[in-house]
Amino acid sequence: MEKDNNKLEKIVSLCKRRGFVYPSSEIYGGFSGFWHYGHYGAILKENIKFVWKQKFIFERSDVFMTDTSIISNPKVLESSGHVENFGNEIFKTMIGTGEEAITSYLRPETAQSIFIDFKNTIDTHHPTLPFGIAQIGKAFRNEISPRDFIFRDRELEQMEVEYFIRENDWEKYFEEWRENMKNFAKEVGINDIFELEVPTDDRAHYSKRTIDFLFDWPFGRGELWGLAYRTDFDLKNHGLDYFDEESGTRFIPHVIEPSLGVERTMLAVLLSAYTEDEMDGEKRVFLKLSPNIAPIKIAVFPLLKNKPELVKKAREIFSLLKKEFKSVEFDDNGNIGKRYRRQDEIGTPFCVTVDFDTIEKGEGVTVRDRDTGEQERVLESGLVAYLQNKIFGI
Amino acid sequence: MEKDNNKLEKIVSLCKRRGFVYPSSEIYGGFSGFWHYGHYGAILKENIKFVWKQKFIFERSDVFMTDTSIISNPKVLESSGHVENFGNEIFKTMIGTGEEAITSYLRPETAQSIFIDFKNTIDTHHPTLPFGIAQIGKAFRNEISPRDFIFRDRELEQMEVEYFIRENDWEKYFEEWRENMKNFAKEVGINDIFELEVPTDDRAHYSKRTIDFLFDWPFGRGELWGLAYRTDFDLKNHGLDYFDEESGTRFIPHVIEPSLGVERTMLAVLLSAYTEDEMDGEKRVFLKLSPNIAPIKIAVFPLLKNKPELVKKAREIFSLLKKEFKSVEFDDNGNIGKRYRRQDEIGTPFCVTVDFDTIEKGEGVTVRDRDTGEQERVLESGLVAYLQNKIFGI
Repeated sequence: MEKDNNKLEKIVSLCKRRGFVYPSSEIYGGFSGFWHYGHYGAILKENIKFVWKQKFIFERSDVFMTDTSIISNPKVLESSGHVENFGNEIFKTMIGTGEEAITSYLRPETAQSIFIDFKNTIDTHHPTLPFGIAQIGKAFRNEISPRDFIFRDRELEQMEVEYFIRENDWEKYFEEWRENMKNFAKEVGINDIFELEVPTDDRAHYSKRTIDFLFDWPFGRGELWGLAYRTDFDLKNHGLDYFDEESGTRFIPHVIEPSLGVERTMLAVLLSAYTEDEMDGEKRVFLKLSPNIAPIKIAVFPLLKNKPELVKKAREIFSLLKKEFKSVEFDDNGNIGKRYRRQDEIGTPFCVTVDFDTIEKGEGVTVRDRDTGEQERVLESGLVAYLQNKIFGI
Repeated sequence: MEKDNNKLEKIVSLCKRRGFVYPSSEIYGGFSGFWHYGHYGAILKENIKFVWKQKFIFERSDVFMTDTSIISNPKVLESSGHVENFGNEIFKTMIGTGEEAITSYLRPETAQSIFIDFKNTIDTHHPTLPFGIAQIGKAFRNEISPRDFIFRDRELEQMEVEYFIRENDWEKYFEEWRENMKNFAKEVGINDIFELEVPTDDRAHYSKRTIDFLFDWPFGRGELWGLAYRTDFDLKNHGLDYFDEESGTRFIPHVIEPSLGVERTMLAVLLSAYTEDEMDGEKRVFLKLSPNIAPIKIAVFPLLKNKPELVKKAREIFSLLKKEFKSVEFDDNGNIGKRYRRQDEIGTPFCVTVDFDTIEKGEGVTVRDRDTGEQERVLESGLVAYLQNKIFGI
């Protein structure tokens, strides 16, 4: 695919202008590899994580959630092999003071902190195989060359599941998680992903199969997510095993790991949603975000700012919708065209406008569809139900 | 108040046994000041954060959300005065490699990373005063003596708002946030909080008023949350100001800061919910968590495990309720009394049991109330509505 650095620049610019992503510490000249997420970016990340949690944890009954510390006993990353193999790339810090201080690490992945909770999870829940432990959390890598916006960061957030199975079942569950990842892509609006069967020589030595899910970034096709069959490598490193009550045997379970980064997912979502078209004879930019992850679901406007009766009515409708949908904005700045353009750029699927026909004739409000720009009149009494149907399909 | 270390021990034991909180890196001997949250603990934290986000961000229209990096340009904490005043207590790490590597810090509070986004927020949203910027995020402190379970940690999570105001309005907004914090306490089920007007000599030098919200911990009355009027100290440190379009003047806004720790909130929630009583002649322990933050809302049981028709029906009802309420568990382990006790200890408000009258006479299921232990028969057709009413009040 042709590279399109121009598109990346457009996204970076939109993200800053509209409050999705700012450079970290910008007033101090920034800090390479670190980013701040503004209001819409923070909400978009939350929404992506929410969908992930639903699909990877809460819609199932075999995955436990965990939330572990970023800094652990240094033996964790020593036993896993990370310190020996990636010691240059891992951030170190001293814990404690004086002579008792010891060196520990900021985890470079959330996976190891999941593995070390294997025993606690067994002792608490007594699950039978297969079962998973899932986590969303920060990880840190001292990248030599952070680049391509939020694609390669020094501080990042991961969404990982370690799914524990019997060795014989690995192909079946590998396929199950592969499907689940593809469904997740659809649900957050990432349409084009490509699967790369990672050849033996490029796989980690302990992995018997890895699929990279690739995406066409503006800087070239590259990794979005990974799905790996990690065998029993990690549990073995940590000296952990499983007692099967049915057969009375003790063995080391094998592991399937679907691993997703929040920032790359968000970038792929934004790139997939970014659309340019022409409307009313003018060039227009909008984010075609699916309603379930759009940071703002509905914006409410009075047609004119200086007509108190329009503003009052619009405020009433805003309060009603805010109570119902939470992610709702009121805007009476500038002219209506500008307000539509602003909501288009943050990906708000519906704009509700109060005009003179609303208050003088009781003809309801207009609801504008972001993607088509078409407006429909909807009576106030049916507005909540109309929007619930459009947004949640209910 | 009398100290009750016995109660702390009971909570620590329950948290570990039931999967709320484990010592970090336990298989490697633990790591002082760091903790892992198991399935129910991770969900409880999520639920507490959800309620906070609703009350401090999404039910309002004047607070923006942000999500900033833990590691920033070192100038941030140098300008704020942290490095000079607390340099022993802040974790350091080297960013980059070789000669280009520089020392930076793991933030000891989320507040400074909010302040440095003040300009970006203004440039993006053009808000008028008063407005706030809110964040939930991790902070790190090299505590000399981590202690009292999750009360004093080296890695913790904060929920903070920096609310920017005109100097003259400070008393009004201080009171507003004070009320909001008290309402939040009620909503998560923390009943007894005590306000301490912090005397001048004990306040940070820049604060003109601070209220500590205290809680009766088993180890004595101590700080739960803080509310501070921080004047213009922080924005001044970072060289930031505000241009008021109406008056055409430029000035430094003042700041009200409600600051809450997730772990202390969770501990106070657990201590408030922990209850011992007697039921059916036996001592019983249960967590009286309000349904909005209970990790599991409903558990579904077949009365007996070895009756396929009961199990099948219970599975059906489980699927129905899981679709509707998400946080639902199925359990057919051990006898029914044991299952009730387990759900009591994790704070599940309702247990639904399928018995012979369900399948033979169509008389519906029993719904057991956690707090009273009383059971009510509810017809299957009305079960979802019954539970929605009980859990969400709708």
